[in-house]
Amino acid sequence: MLLSFRYPNGKTNGRAMHLQRKTFANRGMTLEEDLNHTNHYYLASGIAVIHKKPTPVQIVKVDYPKRSAAVIKEAYFKQASTTDYNGVYRGKYIDFEAKETKNRTSFPLNNFHEHQIEHMKKVHDQKGICFVILRFVLHDKIFLLEVPHLFLYWDRQYGNGRKSIPLSYIEKNGHEIAPGYQPRIDYLKIIDKLYFNSTCSSSKDFRER
Amino acid sequence: MLLSFRYPNGKTNGRAMHLQRKTFANRGMTLEEDLNHTNHYYLASGIAVIHKKPTPVQIVKVDYPKRSAAVIKEAYFKQASTTDYNGVYRGKYIDFEAKETKNRTSFPLNNFHEHQIEHMKKVHDQKGICFVILRFVLHDKIFLLEVPHLFLYWDRQYGNGRKSIPLSYIEKNGHEIAPGYQPRIDYLKIIDKLYFNSTCSSSKDFRER
Repeated sequence: MLLSFRYPNGKTNGRAMHLQRKTFANRGMTLEEDLNHTNHYYLASGIAVIHKKPTPVQIVKVDYPKRSAAVIKEAYFKQASTTDYNGVYRGKYIDFEAKETKNRTSFPLNNFHEHQIEHMKKVHDQKGICFVILRFVLHDKIFLLEVPHLFLYWDRQYGNGRKSIPLSYIEKNGHEIAPGYQPRIDYLKIIDKLYFNSTCSSSKDFRER
Repeated sequence: MLLSFRYPNGKTNGRAMHLQRKTFANRGMTLEEDLNHTNHYYLASGIAVIHKKPTPVQIVKVDYPKRSAAVIKEAYFKQASTTDYNGVYRGKYIDFEAKETKNRTSFPLNNFHEHQIEHMKKVHDQKGICFVILRFVLHDKIFLLEVPHLFLYWDRQYGNGRKSIPLSYIEKNGHEIAPGYQPRIDYLKIIDKLYFNSTCSSSKDFRER
């Protein structure tokens, strides 16, 4: 399928990759679409049940025309109080947010808002598996970063800390997700390594239960 | 708080309870509101993170007026492909649907649709904790029923089986949730008993992990 060819394996320099990404962006490929595609693959293959939540909307006015479907005539977007994606994998609760940046050297924290961070902290406290998927558009790299690392930078920014997470920190403490065809963004491969094998000590608390 | 007085403890006959329910119903109390109240209590108390998903809406037309918020001018309700509620409790994935009936003797299966059942089957396969909360309005009784029981009746209806689950079956195989003030519908108490104690053999597969 032609659409699958968005992640070339050949090496390219940053500039070429930039142009390439733009071309693919023009085809309407977004991180969200890739994740929906991935989640659909997981679902269809019986691997996991993970969905994107519907956009929260405040409905004000609805018309009920005769013999046809109800039409929402006035509604407003509401700010999400949770992350966009959640579901179940091998009995465990999975919860994440996905964001992308055109920044080259760091991931700006203003991609997240306070409510989402609060939600992720509560999920983490409940021993849910919680992370963010961060895409650096211009490098064409995608990382999975567990939320404690995000919380560290988030909380620190209020004590005059920096307003972004350096790419170097993400490269060191996050997990790069290699591109694929089926699924496109195989983030559960990382989750397997972190939470279901015994090779990683950082996630011991999740395996206890 | 006056609103908390909707579940009287004194014994009443069905008819009196019926009238009472209607009165409270007129105040706008619904199963959904009670569950939102309950989930809010769980969240605020650090017990669990469980949310109702936003109503899925297909957005067709949006206006962007100057200096004010975007207004959705045309949108349609979409059929949900999942259940309404999900979240995390003690590391486990929780997923449920809540429905009420005015039927006195059984719970009609047409309260659910095929997509939701499919979703629940997948969640169950992934070892998520999946159930339905069933309210018999006229008896003022609420039960938690684990999904394998629902699947049994659901699948059987296509082999000329009955189109509803008898109340007697639910009383025997489900778990009645006693009314409360804080929280109003303490369904996690049942979940504790079923999945986190060692007194129940039926849920062994959830505790293995």
